[in-house]
Amino acid sequence: MTDVKDILAKYSKDLDTYIEKFLPPEKPDNLMAATIQYPRAGGKRMRPAMVLAACGAVGGDKEKAIPLAVAIEYIHNFTLIHDDYMDGDDKRRGMTTIHVKYGGPTAILAGDALFARALEVIAKLDVPDSVMREVLKVVTRAVWDLARGQQMDVNNENGQEVTMDEYIETIRLKTSVLFAAGAAGGAMMGGADKKAVEAIHEYAMLLGVAFQMFDDVLGLIGDPVKLGKSVGNDVRKGKSTVMVTHALKNIKDQKIMKEFRSVLGKIDASEDEIQKARKIMENAGSVDFAIAMATDYTKRAIAKLDHLKQSDDKKFMIALAEYAMKRDV
Amino acid sequence: MTDVKDILAKYSKDLDTYIEKFLPPEKPDNLMAATIQYPRAGGKRMRPAMVLAACGAVGGDKEKAIPLAVAIEYIHNFTLIHDDYMDGDDKRRGMTTIHVKYGGPTAILAGDALFARALEVIAKLDVPDSVMREVLKVVTRAVWDLARGQQMDVNNENGQEVTMDEYIETIRLKTSVLFAAGAAGGAMMGGADKKAVEAIHEYAMLLGVAFQMFDDVLGLIGDPVKLGKSVGNDVRKGKSTVMVTHALKNIKDQKIMKEFRSVLGKIDASEDEIQKARKIMENAGSVDFAIAMATDYTKRAIAKLDHLKQSDDKKFMIALAEYAMKRDV
Repeated sequence: MTDVKDILAKYSKDLDTYIEKFLPPEKPDNLMAATIQYPRAGGKRMRPAMVLAACGAVGGDKEKAIPLAVAIEYIHNFTLIHDDYMDGDDKRRGMTTIHVKYGGPTAILAGDALFARALEVIAKLDVPDSVMREVLKVVTRAVWDLARGQQMDVNNENGQEVTMDEYIETIRLKTSVLFAAGAAGGAMMGGADKKAVEAIHEYAMLLGVAFQMFDDVLGLIGDPVKLGKSVGNDVRKGKSTVMVTHALKNIKDQKIMKEFRSVLGKIDASEDEIQKARKIMENAGSVDFAIAMATDYTKRAIAKLDHLKQSDDKKFMIALAEYAMKRDV
Repeated sequence: MTDVKDILAKYSKDLDTYIEKFLPPEKPDNLMAATIQYPRAGGKRMRPAMVLAACGAVGGDKEKAIPLAVAIEYIHNFTLIHDDYMDGDDKRRGMTTIHVKYGGPTAILAGDALFARALEVIAKLDVPDSVMREVLKVVTRAVWDLARGQQMDVNNENGQEVTMDEYIETIRLKTSVLFAAGAAGGAMMGGADKKAVEAIHEYAMLLGVAFQMFDDVLGLIGDPVKLGKSVGNDVRKGKSTVMVTHALKNIKDQKIMKEFRSVLGKIDASEDEIQKARKIMENAGSVDFAIAMATDYTKRAIAKLDHLKQSDDKKFMIALAEYAMKRDV
């Protein structure tokens, strides 16, 4: 596990220069500051690491894929800026969110600007024009899907219950597609054939689902200090996570069900109430169920890499999939 | 003038099918409805017309440029969705705006989705990969600049006075760059050489400034019914339009100046107060000044087309520049 964290940290450090390089200062200052804040702050930077690893795993020159890695990270950050505003979250990575610090309009514009810059970086990728075009197709389709997934999430928060399948479709769209676009793009830049690009794309789609499911688990049972945000907010929003969907199906005791439902979607639920709901889900086996399901996705993700040649990058991709399930942040 | 309107209307009708074609229904329904509403509603569609005319004026096949025309219109509409939300406007083209109808989060996501789709359409343009790459560069740079211009506009609304030059730089960014990217992109798709692309780019930059200046004029002295929106809002927001900047410099009577300043930036100014401020600006020659300045930009725009061969498309581009100054909506 330490290995993955170390490699992620190394990749992240390597990216710092480029994160700044593609966002040189321009006017107006407040937009620039708002645009660079999240990319500069870092976070796990799993997506760019995946771009580079996928490029390396197919025998490509990782150096060349760095701008794409940065572009994918910008896109991720653009969606975070917009999501934080939509969700009304005031903290991200321990920092004040953009809309709180600079106002809603600037949050919208900083996201738009970051998206535009990401695509401009892609337009200038140092690969044959035809490869750039394929990368562009998969990335633009991913952002379209991201918006759809995020909208489904917004729709689901209105207390409306969704099926497990619907929820998984939502997280495929709002999380997996960008992982997958980055990984596939990295593989394309590395000169992979169509079959390898597809395998890597599927690997990242499955990994993304596992990652998001485990994120939901952490959002319930994780350490608020390590996470840098409060837990239980999915419950407060009445979000149909795998755990909630499982619990609603499997709680047999009507009294407990009533108690659970009284907290679900209660936007101002207290810490005590959240802990009660958490206990109920744990007792119903819902947390274990979510972890088991995410583990299954992880295994399926790793299996997709079977026909890639052995390499450090392939090893890292496997370890990354395992890490998605073993992290505490 | 009738000619330009007719040609715009014809282009607009030709585009209808494609506007729908590149946004086929997907899930979720509310996002799709929010995404298609503005593009479907039409408006003047000057930007796509300019893409097509620029392509034709350099001898290209306009049919091929249709997807780019649609993409530029999607981008324009994405910025309108976001702007309306930022500005808190509740009407656009006589319709309820997206954030009012579907909520703020959906407005943000619909804009993001529309931008993503625009770039996906560009990724699939039926031109050599190298041409597509050049089009992508100019378009992505334009959206980056649009965000900067919009942010300057937001910053300027805080009552802070800006110089005439600063204001013109703002409207170059928030309006001209997308006109110019569309026109240059159309020319590129038509196979224009670098010199012709540049001339057409400059034409559209200048036209954009004239267009926005005259838009500001209409926003003060236009007919609210024809415009489909109330007038005087720039005054209420204390925006440093050319007229306001001119008036602040040229009003000599201190009593009148005091009266003018008492309305400027008064967000709840009454219809009467707005009319008073308008009269003051008219008396100070500020409205005439703005019209003269816009006319000058129009002339300079048209001059940029000098070395293009005569054609119906060139004629239309000239007429379009003149129309920018003679419209009532």
